[in-house]
Amino acid sequence: MNADIPYKIYLDEKELPKAWYNLRADMINKPAPLLNPETRQPSTVEELSQVFCKELAAQELDETNPYIEIPEPIRNFYKMYRPAPLIRAYFLEKALNTPAHIYYKFEGNNTSGSHKLNSAIAQAYYAKQEGLKGVSTETGAGQWGTALSMASAFFGINCRVFMVKCSYEQKPHRREVMNTYGAYVTPSPSMDTEIGRKILEEHPGTSGSLGCAISEAVEFALNNPGYKYALGSVLNQVLLHQSIIGLETMTALDKYNIKPDVIIGCAGGGSNLGGLISPFVGRKLKGELDCRFVAVEPASCPSLTRGKYVYDYCDTGRVCPLQKMYTLGSGFIPSSSHSGGLRYHGMSSLLSQLYDDKIMEAISVTQSEVFGAAVTFARTEGTLPAPESSHAIYAAMQEAIRCREEGKHENIVFGLTGTGYFDMLAYGKFNAGQMNDYVPTDAEIEASLQQL
Amino acid sequence: MNADIPYKIYLDEKELPKAWYNLRADMINKPAPLLNPETRQPSTVEELSQVFCKELAAQELDETNPYIEIPEPIRNFYKMYRPAPLIRAYFLEKALNTPAHIYYKFEGNNTSGSHKLNSAIAQAYYAKQEGLKGVSTETGAGQWGTALSMASAFFGINCRVFMVKCSYEQKPHRREVMNTYGAYVTPSPSMDTEIGRKILEEHPGTSGSLGCAISEAVEFALNNPGYKYALGSVLNQVLLHQSIIGLETMTALDKYNIKPDVIIGCAGGGSNLGGLISPFVGRKLKGELDCRFVAVEPASCPSLTRGKYVYDYCDTGRVCPLQKMYTLGSGFIPSSSHSGGLRYHGMSSLLSQLYDDKIMEAISVTQSEVFGAAVTFARTEGTLPAPESSHAIYAAMQEAIRCREEGKHENIVFGLTGTGYFDMLAYGKFNAGQMNDYVPTDAEIEASLQQL
Repeated sequence: MNADIPYKIYLDEKELPKAWYNLRADMINKPAPLLNPETRQPSTVEELSQVFCKELAAQELDETNPYIEIPEPIRNFYKMYRPAPLIRAYFLEKALNTPAHIYYKFEGNNTSGSHKLNSAIAQAYYAKQEGLKGVSTETGAGQWGTALSMASAFFGINCRVFMVKCSYEQKPHRREVMNTYGAYVTPSPSMDTEIGRKILEEHPGTSGSLGCAISEAVEFALNNPGYKYALGSVLNQVLLHQSIIGLETMTALDKYNIKPDVIIGCAGGGSNLGGLISPFVGRKLKGELDCRFVAVEPASCPSLTRGKYVYDYCDTGRVCPLQKMYTLGSGFIPSSSHSGGLRYHGMSSLLSQLYDDKIMEAISVTQSEVFGAAVTFARTEGTLPAPESSHAIYAAMQEAIRCREEGKHENIVFGLTGTGYFDMLAYGKFNAGQMNDYVPTDAEIEASLQQL
Repeated sequence: MNADIPYKIYLDEKELPKAWYNLRADMINKPAPLLNPETRQPSTVEELSQVFCKELAAQELDETNPYIEIPEPIRNFYKMYRPAPLIRAYFLEKALNTPAHIYYKFEGNNTSGSHKLNSAIAQAYYAKQEGLKGVSTETGAGQWGTALSMASAFFGINCRVFMVKCSYEQKPHRREVMNTYGAYVTPSPSMDTEIGRKILEEHPGTSGSLGCAISEAVEFALNNPGYKYALGSVLNQVLLHQSIIGLETMTALDKYNIKPDVIIGCAGGGSNLGGLISPFVGRKLKGELDCRFVAVEPASCPSLTRGKYVYDYCDTGRVCPLQKMYTLGSGFIPSSSHSGGLRYHGMSSLLSQLYDDKIMEAISVTQSEVFGAAVTFARTEGTLPAPESSHAIYAAMQEAIRCREEGKHENIVFGLTGTGYFDMLAYGKFNAGQMNDYVPTDAEIEASLQQL
């Protein structure tokens, strides 16, 4: 151990990874293939290219190349906010009186407020390369929509965002950030798509869902020449782009000869967690590292811990390919009392496979636990964390407390995906003691899974 | 010139300054002394200590020591978010097609969202050292209140914030951030102080002003044993703490052998600008540097460019010492159409002296100019800037355009004091084409100045 570890380990710009890491190439049990929803046969690059950019469709299905070069324009954009710091949580360690060392990779130092920008800039770049007019997407809590708006503005293409209605109404400022970057934001369900009109007709009062917004964004891309669809999580291509988080973390830890004992990330669709752990899982599979990996999901949307590992639809409208994943059923909608992101019914197929192979663990935590950890973290480490990220903070704190009780030194690493500046309504509820810890009943989950 | 300048120049933690720089020690014409409002004699440390912490009162009047050591607990806190990056605006240069090189010192990578934290942590530290129960303060746009809340939480003391009423109402999320850090926030004018009650009686519908909130916070500190008052700008002590901005900038520029030709900062009370330019002005006074310094103020609150250099009160209630400064009169209240900070009627006495000595220039810009520059900056450089900071962006862009027209290479440095996440209401107005560029008339300014 190096006693002289700085508060923030900043890599040099020259240490910025030149290639993304594709864990699938090194996995023994590969994730199950995507299936065409009509033929139920594995999706081809050609089929996926109707929705996604060609290059991204190829990345989606690539199970052989462990490294995929990052194009220079993307690397230059990365230089505006990367390498991201790996921060030693000295003050949190002291507050918990733990012998453990806690490190967090902080992805919030950019205007999108999260790691989402890492994939957004890649997807906007390939869209520009393909000569497209623009991209369409959905956004829930808003980080992904913001990130894609910024990336689209940078490359001068249009960005059409379908924003889950309750979020659109609760977060006018988040919406205004996207407007400022020139994006066109519509509340979803909207009257602009067939699926939107259908859902509005069937459920006039609905506040929307991520699955429905995805369907609208895909339909928009299919019906508007010059547009393709971009997704911020779940997909292999997104985890690939997000591997930059893990690669930088690994370089920083290696530099100080720190061996992680446990790596923790929050899990919604899995993009941050997958990106963070991928390079480390690669090492573990090669027998070079002994380390636990922990996914932390909200108790209100527990796809890994209470879902089923089966083929399911990625979206409500069932226009996307089928994916084998831990899922609560594509019709599952988390309670409206749930704050922030991590509301997706399923989970990245890659992470689902790792979980099924017991390479990765998973736990679920309640909102009160999450916000309690968030406030402690804010007051000791300074940064006001996003509710999503705070799932990982809670789990990291629990591990640190366990180390204290066991009198053990361990190196705990977690992903701090972003900041909570646009989540003050939820913080306000917690500060006022009005947080709702609703957890779905077994019957509710069973009913949703039976629709599969 | 070094062709190999990275996008972000990050100093090593070991390069973090160990002392603040006190420009007054090197000034030939010192700023005029503070005057006791009752005796009209120069204020003493004893008198100032009734309101401020003793150590801070001493710093306020120190004109002899060029360097004042930064206590270790403050340096450790700084390490959580400092050294702050000096960023080369490669993409903005390209967008402006300018031969100039543009650099900005970015102070927004912390939860307070601005440079204010640099002084807040110092003031909270000295309060803790003095064994105080807490601090009281005012806040306008909210950055300073947030910063002092964070700093107070870190050292475990109370923080009482009087928030200008219009801001309190328009920015509930900003207020919630302060609550999350355990601060107690009251809209000002309030019924909690005599001056607040008096103002409410005279102007029942008032939306408050910074000068009034200052008076309330000072009164609160005077009437509540165990409390002292903290101010986020204008004072010498604040410029001293903020010199860390300029010291880091200087180290970063020196490292790459870059000589600045012009250094630009937005100016409200002067804390960011003073902190940024102080070390460079010191060099200029010693004949070691030839460089212009430019203060950029809002056209709606133009203390340097249209004010008078006289003794005036720092607050509406006239309880604070008198200060010789460029001022619009302590009764001046900028139009309610003005967005963000930089609403103070006066200016740091140190900067006022530099301006009067023609060592520093000043310009004023309208809101539309400011937000236009902000949107261009956001779309090219990624970061969504605070409206305050965007005054400096506008001026830097004008200098870069001048360089293009004159075919000249110059090194332009400006301070990007913070981010605009809590200013989306103002961005929204601009995006909708509803920005109000009201500028006070000569008669209005004359009337305000006649009350001196």
